[in-house]
Amino acid sequence: MTITITAFENSPDRGRGLARDMRVRWALEELGLPYDVRLVSFAALKEPEHLAIQPFGQIPTFEHGELALFETGAILLHLAQTHKGLLPDEPAARARAIAWMFAALNTIEPPIVERGMADILERDKPWYADRLPMLTERVRTRLAQLSRALGEDEWLAGGFSAADIMMVTVLRRAQSTGLLAEWPNLVAYIARAEARPAYQRAFADQLAVFAAANG
Amino acid sequence: MTITITAFENSPDRGRGLARDMRVRWALEELGLPYDVRLVSFAALKEPEHLAIQPFGQIPTFEHGELALFETGAILLHLAQTHKGLLPDEPAARARAIAWMFAALNTIEPPIVERGMADILERDKPWYADRLPMLTERVRTRLAQLSRALGEDEWLAGGFSAADIMMVTVLRRAQSTGLLAEWPNLVAYIARAEARPAYQRAFADQLAVFAAANG
Repeated sequence: MTITITAFENSPDRGRGLARDMRVRWALEELGLPYDVRLVSFAALKEPEHLAIQPFGQIPTFEHGELALFETGAILLHLAQTHKGLLPDEPAARARAIAWMFAALNTIEPPIVERGMADILERDKPWYADRLPMLTERVRTRLAQLSRALGEDEWLAGGFSAADIMMVTVLRRAQSTGLLAEWPNLVAYIARAEARPAYQRAFADQLAVFAAANG
Repeated sequence: MTITITAFENSPDRGRGLARDMRVRWALEELGLPYDVRLVSFAALKEPEHLAIQPFGQIPTFEHGELALFETGAILLHLAQTHKGLLPDEPAARARAIAWMFAALNTIEPPIVERGMADILERDKPWYADRLPMLTERVRTRLAQLSRALGEDEWLAGGFSAADIMMVTVLRRAQSTGLLAEWPNLVAYIARAEARPAYQRAFADQLAVFAAANG
């Protein structure tokens, strides 16, 4: 019974590892779990078969026997709760690490995505330049708070955890803004994560999908 | 050892139960757990004592003995995992309910908050009217998908669960837009949740805080 995840047949991020399957690939590599990937077209995301598992027509999904999950937070949490190695064992530390997973998804990611969507969808609008400082400031506020919370620590919640997989993949979506350079500890944090062999295997695998579709 | 949560001393929602302490109050009432509330001013949110627990200067926090949590998703999940009654027992159903908690926070809430922030911060800007249809469409897309996924079911994940607490409190933030009326099953879902005695106790308690501050 092999784990199967879905990913974009042709990712709009051009293989930069910004699509959300990267988080799940990385977690699976950290745990040493084999998995299959089912590639889906944009049209297939709207099909009833996909919507039955992912009601919002997104990737990735996660299937393992009878279990069918969506939302990367839930997938990583499921993996971390059914295998050792992605969350602290001690209950209070474990709960705090899970809080950092939610913080990545609900506090840090929204302003980063919002600024990114304006870059893609509103760059040619007359108001783009007027709104950009506000959008940037929302991102900067969260990055400054995150930088202060991380301080000189290596990882967010004791040892490396699913919280770091989530936070680093969220922060990488802000790299194109150039804003991260203001906080050297965040830059070093991302680099430390990207140096992990599991990250590198996951990155190479998603890049290979893009290369095959565009070779 | 009593649970202590934080809430706004004077909530900007004027007691409508839209501040995020409502989610935690509701979950605690569903479980029948007593709790204390520490009210905090906006100035106190920036103090080191608060930031040590909540690095982003928000409410609510959750303290229970040595455990100090932030992020409502993590707090509800902690309560649901340490008490019976807020998540299904069967592992696959439980994982799926947790996926709905993440969907509420990471897929449904961001476009609702974004449209709400534009209403508050950009209503007098020249571009407000031009952007509003796009912001509305993002919310409508998610509500339509949610409505289809819920269908004629009573709750999102089998019996009533923490996923419903999360989703209903997120949907209530969209009520002022008038958009929800397009989906009668979502309107009925919210009403069904608001009719629960635990919801009503939580709502009354947060309203009493607002009334005391503005009496």
